[in-house]
Amino acid sequence: MERITIIGLGLIGGSLGLALKEAKLTDIEIVGYDKDTLAAGEARRLRAVDKSERSLQKAVRGARLVIIATPIMATRGVMEEIAGELRENCVVTDTASTKAIVMEWASQLLPATVSFVGGHPMAGKETSGVQNAEAKLFAGKPYCVIPAPEASEGAMRVVTGIVQLVGARPFFIDADEHDRYVAAVSHLPLVLSSALFTLARGSPAWPELSSLAGSGFLGATRLASTDAELSHDICLTNREGVLHWLDRMVEELGRYRELLQEGQEEELFKTFARAHLDRDAYVTAGPPVREPVAAEELPTSGEQLAALLVGQRLVRRVKDIGKLLEEKQERGRRRGAEGRD
Amino acid sequence: MERITIIGLGLIGGSLGLALKEAKLTDIEIVGYDKDTLAAGEARRLRAVDKSERSLQKAVRGARLVIIATPIMATRGVMEEIAGELRENCVVTDTASTKAIVMEWASQLLPATVSFVGGHPMAGKETSGVQNAEAKLFAGKPYCVIPAPEASEGAMRVVTGIVQLVGARPFFIDADEHDRYVAAVSHLPLVLSSALFTLARGSPAWPELSSLAGSGFLGATRLASTDAELSHDICLTNREGVLHWLDRMVEELGRYRELLQEGQEEELFKTFARAHLDRDAYVTAGPPVREPVAAEELPTSGEQLAALLVGQRLVRRVKDIGKLLEEKQERGRRRGAEGRD
Repeated sequence: MERITIIGLGLIGGSLGLALKEAKLTDIEIVGYDKDTLAAGEARRLRAVDKSERSLQKAVRGARLVIIATPIMATRGVMEEIAGELRENCVVTDTASTKAIVMEWASQLLPATVSFVGGHPMAGKETSGVQNAEAKLFAGKPYCVIPAPEASEGAMRVVTGIVQLVGARPFFIDADEHDRYVAAVSHLPLVLSSALFTLARGSPAWPELSSLAGSGFLGATRLASTDAELSHDICLTNREGVLHWLDRMVEELGRYRELLQEGQEEELFKTFARAHLDRDAYVTAGPPVREPVAAEELPTSGEQLAALLVGQRLVRRVKDIGKLLEEKQERGRRRGAEGRD
Repeated sequence: MERITIIGLGLIGGSLGLALKEAKLTDIEIVGYDKDTLAAGEARRLRAVDKSERSLQKAVRGARLVIIATPIMATRGVMEEIAGELRENCVVTDTASTKAIVMEWASQLLPATVSFVGGHPMAGKETSGVQNAEAKLFAGKPYCVIPAPEASEGAMRVVTGIVQLVGARPFFIDADEHDRYVAAVSHLPLVLSSALFTLARGSPAWPELSSLAGSGFLGATRLASTDAELSHDICLTNREGVLHWLDRMVEELGRYRELLQEGQEEELFKTFARAHLDRDAYVTAGPPVREPVAAEELPTSGEQLAALLVGQRLVRRVKDIGKLLEEKQERGRRRGAEGRD
């Protein structure tokens, strides 16, 4: 019997637990920990974990894989507390929305005898807490995987296996790229959404504004209902990325403003039309690049993952991760040639 | 047999037709006109109209009620073309997203023998065209009603009756207020959404950005898929309103930027938390003011509307619209005391 420990039993930790339980891994026990014992109790009741521990140290003791799914800012403290308890060759991963700072904490705080592979599932919803967890939360979603330089190839395979087991698509990327990119497509929309709601809500005309607001306003402000601790932690841990894209957004709004102010009708129409056509193409066809990793190149079944975790046998030779790193470098070169953001 | 004519058989015109047909009005024929004869044919096929005419003049001839549901900028030309054909006491309404300019066109172009009552259903979706029309599009949605100063009380009742018949909630407001308010909750989100998509799409990192983008980005950019003619017309006909709120939005983003830049953690957290709580309260409880008009104060059933349209009998005395105007003035006074936007 090998142990997987999930620290932080909120929406993400709880959903990972449910998804892993649904995979019916054999010889694996899922242990949960949350400093909020009510959340831990609820996770047990929902069978997102097999059992929970009241002590963080006890929860990770002997674990083959530890998943840290706490709020971003709590990750550092968790690493400090568990560092002395982790068994040799333990694989540690996380689910935080920013990665450079977490990779740094891992390199400072975790012992050299364990492997850290950062993770970030691009999944979520506007409600939080384990009571809103779902096994299908990650289905078909990209899941960023960022190995520490010293992480073993086996650790990389374990985390990639978990990603596929919960139904997500592994996306290999380095921490700085990750932070810059999610700042654009995740953190900037969050700030825009919150700012738009704050602006309308703060108006003396709010009674009328809110009476008139329809699904457009609701949709555009949906991310304002993100858990405030998450929004706050994202902004603090990815400050440069968010500031960069916030400035570019203000520039872009300035461009729209100019077209409007100067009555450049044709260019205004073209701008809206281009956005419309391009977005429809994106929604219909999906992203323009192929999947970075074909599914058959990595372990997929629960049996294989269990094999990796318990170390009994390696069901088949999995593809060397060298190929993945080559791809990443290739992406980097291509972008270098195109010019940077 | 009395005639209702719908000019412009797109998403809104088509949905109004379907909703009116569903009300099974007796002794009413719904005639459609669209300069695109394919759209007119599709509207007939979908039974959004009883018949369509190839001539605009012929379509409105003898009509008791004319609904102009064309793109905003086309409204003026339609008014010019139909002005000479409208029967005495004809009620004319429209569905345009901006109202001050349309009210002005109506006052310049329509004969004094007809009554104009502006309308704006706060309903829509990201797809356009009559093929996407639905009878339920307006169900439960606010529908702005703005009578021209010279409009008869009967005309006001006819349009209010239509609004209720299609399942919407009449919202009485004046044209300038309307344009300022929808600029905040409808037109600003549209520009934000389009600008956010344009920004991300224009980045050299778009292949990676689009691979990482999840439901948050899709939701935040949904309005970028609005019909480009609509977006363009809105920006041109409500330029002052859009510029005003665009500037305020940039200010608000500047406030977030400052909190972030200066690392004001507590205030940043409070800002996100306030937006989250306020939005949840709004979503749960709805707008903070009562409905401006109680349903029982206005005609509701198809039979009553038909009575108004065909002028055979007045089923019951409907509430004087004076009460509505008093309410609006009261709102104005209250806002005056609180300070203006």
